[in-house]
Amino acid sequence: MLELRTVIDTMQQCGSVQLFANYEKSAGNYFADADGNLFLDVYTQISSLPLGYNHPALLNAFQNDSEVRALVNRPALGVFPADDWPRKLRDVLLSVAPPGLRHVMTMMCGACSNENAFKAAFILYCTKKRGGKTTFTEEEMKTALLNIPPGAPDLSIMSFKGLNSSGAFHGRTFGTLATTKSKAIHKLDFPSFEWPVARFPEYKYPLEEFKRENEQQDKECLAHVEEQFDKWEKKKPTAGVIIEPIQAEGGDNHASPEFFQELQKICNRRGAALIIDEVQTGCGPTGKMWCHEHFNLPSPPDLVTFSKKMLTGGFYFKPEYLTPQPLRIFNTWMGDPSKLVMLEQVIKVIKTEKLLQLVEETGKVLKNGLHSLETEFPSMMNSVRGRGTFLAFDVATPELQDKIVQTLKQNGVLGGSCGIRTIRLRPALIFEPKHAELFLEILRKTLRQLNGHRPASYASHATDFSLPFIETHTTACTDPYRTDNSSPMPTCDA
Amino acid sequence: MLELRTVIDTMQQCGSVQLFANYEKSAGNYFADADGNLFLDVYTQISSLPLGYNHPALLNAFQNDSEVRALVNRPALGVFPADDWPRKLRDVLLSVAPPGLRHVMTMMCGACSNENAFKAAFILYCTKKRGGKTTFTEEEMKTALLNIPPGAPDLSIMSFKGLNSSGAFHGRTFGTLATTKSKAIHKLDFPSFEWPVARFPEYKYPLEEFKRENEQQDKECLAHVEEQFDKWEKKKPTAGVIIEPIQAEGGDNHASPEFFQELQKICNRRGAALIIDEVQTGCGPTGKMWCHEHFNLPSPPDLVTFSKKMLTGGFYFKPEYLTPQPLRIFNTWMGDPSKLVMLEQVIKVIKTEKLLQLVEETGKVLKNGLHSLETEFPSMMNSVRGRGTFLAFDVATPELQDKIVQTLKQNGVLGGSCGIRTIRLRPALIFEPKHAELFLEILRKTLRQLNGHRPASYASHATDFSLPFIETHTTACTDPYRTDNSSPMPTCDA
Repeated sequence: MLELRTVIDTMQQCGSVQLFANYEKSAGNYFADADGNLFLDVYTQISSLPLGYNHPALLNAFQNDSEVRALVNRPALGVFPADDWPRKLRDVLLSVAPPGLRHVMTMMCGACSNENAFKAAFILYCTKKRGGKTTFTEEEMKTALLNIPPGAPDLSIMSFKGLNSSGAFHGRTFGTLATTKSKAIHKLDFPSFEWPVARFPEYKYPLEEFKRENEQQDKECLAHVEEQFDKWEKKKPTAGVIIEPIQAEGGDNHASPEFFQELQKICNRRGAALIIDEVQTGCGPTGKMWCHEHFNLPSPPDLVTFSKKMLTGGFYFKPEYLTPQPLRIFNTWMGDPSKLVMLEQVIKVIKTEKLLQLVEETGKVLKNGLHSLETEFPSMMNSVRGRGTFLAFDVATPELQDKIVQTLKQNGVLGGSCGIRTIRLRPALIFEPKHAELFLEILRKTLRQLNGHRPASYASHATDFSLPFIETHTTACTDPYRTDNSSPMPTCDA
Repeated sequence: MLELRTVIDTMQQCGSVQLFANYEKSAGNYFADADGNLFLDVYTQISSLPLGYNHPALLNAFQNDSEVRALVNRPALGVFPADDWPRKLRDVLLSVAPPGLRHVMTMMCGACSNENAFKAAFILYCTKKRGGKTTFTEEEMKTALLNIPPGAPDLSIMSFKGLNSSGAFHGRTFGTLATTKSKAIHKLDFPSFEWPVARFPEYKYPLEEFKRENEQQDKECLAHVEEQFDKWEKKKPTAGVIIEPIQAEGGDNHASPEFFQELQKICNRRGAALIIDEVQTGCGPTGKMWCHEHFNLPSPPDLVTFSKKMLTGGFYFKPEYLTPQPLRIFNTWMGDPSKLVMLEQVIKVIKTEKLLQLVEETGKVLKNGLHSLETEFPSMMNSVRGRGTFLAFDVATPELQDKIVQTLKQNGVLGGSCGIRTIRLRPALIFEPKHAELFLEILRKTLRQLNGHRPASYASHATDFSLPFIETHTTACTDPYRTDNSSPMPTCDA
């Protein structure tokens, strides 16, 4: 491992590398590292693996000649799509479209999906302002090339950040980074657009105990959204509002269905696009294909962006966001057909193996277990929250957050943190109740080890870890008891 | 074809779609459409296919289990790279690194490569301004999250545009789009950064006839670069200068080696990064792996970005552009290992089949042929220019540009346009002299048809097209004589 680090270190900044993986030996919910250690993975490559490692359906996805050809003949999809592309868009992407949406564009990654959703919002906003006219003035054409108004208008996209918590994460390209409000280190030294930021609710848990306080949060934050619209109307009118159904990198911050319903009303009234960023929440981990389905919105969001578990980037949209001219939402590749070959298999498995149901079932086991642990360790953890297996809890301090992630790793679990003092669970959709039990057992052991900050003594707890839980098809060396503490563990928000 | 268009039209803006492809039947330099027509492809998916269609080396790239696993276990490369990733970076990407560069980051596409090169430039610029200090003030941390200085400083990236021609193209995400100066339609309605734009030389051809005038162009444009540095120094200091070795989308605008040498000197003196955007020129089409190798720069450029034919995005960089902290040049996927599986094969084929030599050889045939044609049709075409097979010529009017591309298509050739009145050639690296001869023959026929704007009469020229040239391993229906004229042909700059 150290040797690999030495090699990569000569070629790039690799301080973020936690472990080198053995992807031949990784299987299902288990990640194998290059040293032969095996980890139960509840982080799954920053929440981007729908079916864990080496799922047979994916290993077999490229058995046919036609799939291999989709892989090696990557077209400029916007110009020369394959003859089966319309079918794929329809049968794969539209088969899981958010209720009410029937249009979709493919992209490369989450950031570029959000960037292009912004563009769609700006285009519709400006087209409306022109009274529907789809031609441009000479001045607009000229100033667009100079990056100044009216051709490049001073418009904005609104995003969210809680008063005391870390905020939105929508990507790191310059457009999306302007709306990202998670950590300063993501943004330092980069010029940006000064755009409106509205308050995101900060709930107290358990929700049923703090109903009044949390409703008050919703109210104040919605009022703040209105304020922001007013404040920026003269300066840089807001063409769109982007929001995650659950602010993930920001600390798994939730808002109620009522909050989202009201937000949609405000956007409609203000003529701004409501962009739901489902990059991390989409594709099932909350128990529904799209997290915003939990919100019972009276009409679909204007734009819904996706990536990660969907394997391809892209966005669904209402027909009014079809651009009046071609080539305005465009790039060379416009996605990658080989990702749809895999996504088609993923969706098939989700349906035939009823994985959304499994997510609900496993999620219940996980959440109940976490609630027990917060009762058992009230000084260490609290605020268990989430939907499906998209769960999180807060811990007492940022230091404890680091220690928990590190100790989990030493105990054989790859976990993730987010926000300032949150531990997040992002298992694959194939995470079963038995994996949940195993995780809870290791988490309990970890909390015990760290309780009262007494020095961890791994060996004495080794028997806590029930090896029989490890899936029998895993051929890897099953030694999750790494005692070295070599890797620094920076937070890998992405 | 019409039916496919009807289906896709219900799902997205598809005005840019020219043809639906049959990628099973496409082979080598020949593109097969869904109706069974075959085209000699000198456009190759907006210049993104290194080895044409269905090259055996690529079809066989995923024969081994380990390659399939690289495909289906896509990691967060910045956190959990596979144990063979350091080797791949070294043996694949560094094996073709521009002379003098030994560091590389992978990305997803050209735009995101350029966005991240900008970030690297901004980070080094700010670190230097801090006297090398790698910590931040409270104020910087706070203002970065607010998108305002000093944390989000008012810095700029300089790009280029000729006085009378179309300009730079560096991508369509919000950061890169600010430096893109090709067409207004790419930029209209999007807020942007007001950043410096320097003049790009506008040469007269043939070069040897206009030596004095062209040197004068260089001189004036370099003076303009200096002026821009001065002008923006107070307002938004320039941290980097991005330039294509050949402005491709802008109209295949060239600048001399001397221009680039002087530009590098200016950047060094001004403390700004020189970013060479080799997204379209990289990976061999000019006869060298990297086009800037033709410029004999005394030291390597600071950053060299790539994508398209390289199959993966990314950038090479000098070691001083290693960020002082991890996670500042970062995203979830950081590229895609499966693209390196293919790139490894591409590089092997380039080397074993001496494709750079072939590019030179074929390029000579093509260029000589184009020169003959400009002598034969002086009122229609002129200014033949380029390196290797990365060639172009101007035509009399934008209308003629459209007509030539359309008529070429009817005659069995997929060609591309760029700039205002330029036809560009972007064949794959496997384009041989025989394909060049075939192309020249069809171009000659096309020019004859259009000469004097007399109505084209396709049938009478059918015998001009020598079928024996078509590669025998092509099993497709060989009927390139499409008489329908169904598709609109927007310019697909990307």
